[in-house]
Amino acid sequence: MTHRLPEPLLALIAALSRLPGIGPRSAERLGLHLVQTDPALVAQLARSLVDARERIRTCDACGALTEVNPCNLCTDPGRDASLLCVVERATDILVLEKAGTFRGRYHVLGGRLSPVNGVGPEDLRLEELTQRLAQGTAKELVLALGTDVEGDATAHYLAERFGSPTVSVTRLAAGLPAGSGLDFADELTLSRALEGRRPV
Amino acid sequence: MTHRLPEPLLALIAALSRLPGIGPRSAERLGLHLVQTDPALVAQLARSLVDARERIRTCDACGALTEVNPCNLCTDPGRDASLLCVVERATDILVLEKAGTFRGRYHVLGGRLSPVNGVGPEDLRLEELTQRLAQGTAKELVLALGTDVEGDATAHYLAERFGSPTVSVTRLAAGLPAGSGLDFADELTLSRALEGRRPV
Repeated sequence: MTHRLPEPLLALIAALSRLPGIGPRSAERLGLHLVQTDPALVAQLARSLVDARERIRTCDACGALTEVNPCNLCTDPGRDASLLCVVERATDILVLEKAGTFRGRYHVLGGRLSPVNGVGPEDLRLEELTQRLAQGTAKELVLALGTDVEGDATAHYLAERFGSPTVSVTRLAAGLPAGSGLDFADELTLSRALEGRRPV
Repeated sequence: MTHRLPEPLLALIAALSRLPGIGPRSAERLGLHLVQTDPALVAQLARSLVDARERIRTCDACGALTEVNPCNLCTDPGRDASLLCVVERATDILVLEKAGTFRGRYHVLGGRLSPVNGVGPEDLRLEELTQRLAQGTAKELVLALGTDVEGDATAHYLAERFGSPTVSVTRLAAGLPAGSGLDFADELTLSRALEGRRPV
């Protein structure tokens, strides 16, 4: 009989290795650490897991992660309701909020158009977007999408479908990253920076 | 008011970032994944955590991780009780068992001598080792310790304290790793391989 890890530890390692970015070796290392660490800390981690999963939901209006529905971003009167920033995922909001420049509201698509992966317009939160625009407060859709082919396709689709005399559709500028030089930019970034050049 | 993540999610991320090898960014990524994934999977992970921590303990005799005490390694009649392999940590047993060559029993020290870090003989499981040797079944202590300065110091201390006419103390060979060439070996490994050369 070869020696194996005890069953409950194997089950824990299996559960951990299902997490994104945790390979079999990391899962084993984590599992071994957890069964040898302070039981109170392990119980606390388990509680945090269940607690967070139960209490956090997505906002019906914008799709952000929130405890209250509608979320604070949607109800904050200090935010400019005429600006609606469209992002792919709820986590993109965090990145933009860390930058701290945008003071409008958000709308999470929940993905982007990708015919190859079978993602069509009906798979995105576009009905919700239509309803929000029907309220008439939003005057500009700021598309904060990735700058690859699928991001471009999604941007064009949204501009076509939602652009109107009362609602303009804009997109984040593509160009050189801040604090970087020409020698670090790839060719596509450079040509987009050229296309988007602006008077100084 | 800047937008922050909901409190339960922040608590989860904080708990995750206390795990070894999980930095702040990985913890955030994991937390965001967990609050958006199947609640049943999250509940299962939480249960596995508590379950593993509660059911797994260290064997009083050898120090291995186990559900039963004494562990299967200590009670397995198919294992040679005259050979006792001394390792630093319980997880070292797994590495040796994967290699599959050793058919004796184990003894976990729980560390190694390190005056710099204030680890002395009284901090290691040496009382337990004394008791096991007093039973008279073990004839050889195989030291499977790291090959750095602290490993060397621990090996010499153990040889001095436990070596006797009835108990020999040996150490794993130091030399070239299997399947590797001279060009990949560092100088210290090479000189140890030379010192340990054997007739073909």
